[in-house]
Amino acid sequence: MDFLECVPNLSEGRRPEVIARLAAAASAGPGVRLLDVSSDPDHNRTVLTLAGPPEGLHQSLLALYETALAEIDLTRHDGVHPRVGAVDVTPFVPLGDTPMEAAVAAAERLGRAVAERFALPVYLYERAARTPERRRLAILRRGQFEGFPAKMADPAWAPDFGPARVHPTAGVTVVGARFFLIAFNAVLDTDDAEIARAVARRVRESSGGLPAVRALGFFLARRGRAQVSMNLVDYRQTPILTALDRVRREAEALGARVVETELIGLAPEESILGVARDALQLPELLPGRMLERGLSG
Amino acid sequence: MDFLECVPNLSEGRRPEVIARLAAAASAGPGVRLLDVSSDPDHNRTVLTLAGPPEGLHQSLLALYETALAEIDLTRHDGVHPRVGAVDVTPFVPLGDTPMEAAVAAAERLGRAVAERFALPVYLYERAARTPERRRLAILRRGQFEGFPAKMADPAWAPDFGPARVHPTAGVTVVGARFFLIAFNAVLDTDDAEIARAVARRVRESSGGLPAVRALGFFLARRGRAQVSMNLVDYRQTPILTALDRVRREAEALGARVVETELIGLAPEESILGVARDALQLPELLPGRMLERGLSG
Repeated sequence: MDFLECVPNLSEGRRPEVIARLAAAASAGPGVRLLDVSSDPDHNRTVLTLAGPPEGLHQSLLALYETALAEIDLTRHDGVHPRVGAVDVTPFVPLGDTPMEAAVAAAERLGRAVAERFALPVYLYERAARTPERRRLAILRRGQFEGFPAKMADPAWAPDFGPARVHPTAGVTVVGARFFLIAFNAVLDTDDAEIARAVARRVRESSGGLPAVRALGFFLARRGRAQVSMNLVDYRQTPILTALDRVRREAEALGARVVETELIGLAPEESILGVARDALQLPELLPGRMLERGLSG
Repeated sequence: MDFLECVPNLSEGRRPEVIARLAAAASAGPGVRLLDVSSDPDHNRTVLTLAGPPEGLHQSLLALYETALAEIDLTRHDGVHPRVGAVDVTPFVPLGDTPMEAAVAAAERLGRAVAERFALPVYLYERAARTPERRRLAILRRGQFEGFPAKMADPAWAPDFGPARVHPTAGVTVVGARFFLIAFNAVLDTDDAEIARAVARRVRESSGGLPAVRALGFFLARRGRAQVSMNLVDYRQTPILTALDRVRREAEALGARVVETELIGLAPEESILGVARDALQLPELLPGRMLERGLSG
């Protein structure tokens, strides 16, 4: 049976009662499990991690979009993280033996339903994209909510589903399919966002840094700290500790230090064991070496 | 139901076919699982990790002692690790909610049976020790196999079970009960055992180093490397990465570097996640953050 992860990113990270309603709505589908809720008030953003069968996730996501459109008004939303929609982006990820095609099919089905039911423009991205230029989220998101009416005036930016006009309070939404990624942030001991942005540029693949690493620099006003926010899209190419060590080095070259890190959502067990293996200089560290796993396996 | 770990240390680490027979014998008890086999030819020693109910482990251990006494001749054994017996030491460890008393009872029962069946002198150690001076393995083992006839001539060193004379080929055996420990070795880029011994002295608790750390220094002739061999008897007091970082620092002060490490047997999941947490500067890392655990939990 097909089994997917779904990681909706919502433009609300400050009101706990709204976040609770969003999380409850997303948990409603049959067979769906809510694995993690990560909110950040400076990003003003919440990332939910769901897992379940495609039909259950479809029902969960419809309920989530309905709740998000009722609760979130982007005209009154501010946050350091770029966003185009109340439900900013909804990626489906194949788990276990499930093929990527199942994640693409789930994205298309959800996109069509959401466009119809809520009159919301929908863009398909990554593996679900219908043209190469829509693959990359950064490009799709360019202009953000405020700039989207102008962007959409260009017929080249007509949505894949739904009306060619921005929803007044919910913007647009990006739905797609991709492989598993690890969202991992490093917080610096400086309030200078320019340092975080410079570190991000040196670390990310698109400007010549580490393979399979995406990175942005932000200022977290509530904490008074700058942050390097990363997506590791293939931890086998660039393991978590490799990415962090590079951030540490580049930050130190600019006079800053990493004070702590954040893992948003979940990471594959192998990627976490990889951190322990790298840190300990162990040639190998299999899950069975952990007492509890050895006993239960 | 009581559930124990048992970690017999055997004085054979070079002959794969003998190690296989020892491991098979140890797996024979009902409900017993063999979780790990770690052999080292320089130590000439094998550590088996077993888990199961007390009765199953008792049967496994009797089979293991019988096989070990048939296969191992200490008069022809050499290795860098100190040893007093063919089955050098057999600790029982309570798992889960099992009380320490169950591990002590298992040690006493095994000690009595082994002494009777094989005419082998048995010493009880750690939590099973009957006098304070027999608690510490290092003191019990002093003199090793070759020195034990002289040691045993002193009535203060009469065994807890069995005859007061060393078995001609199997020496004596030490049986006991203790809490879980992590056996962790660091291999240095030097062939100078004196450096490893100096590092071990600076790292271990008994000479003023880190709490809950025991350490010895060895030379591994087959690899041409010196090794710091550690037992971490409470990873909450001294986490694995803390111990390793101290070894790295002390080794570097003496002009050597750690080239790789070894984890012998198993380690609690929490201790491994602790390594990842420490290495990543993550404030928290719960097992549920690992995708596979989140899905199965």
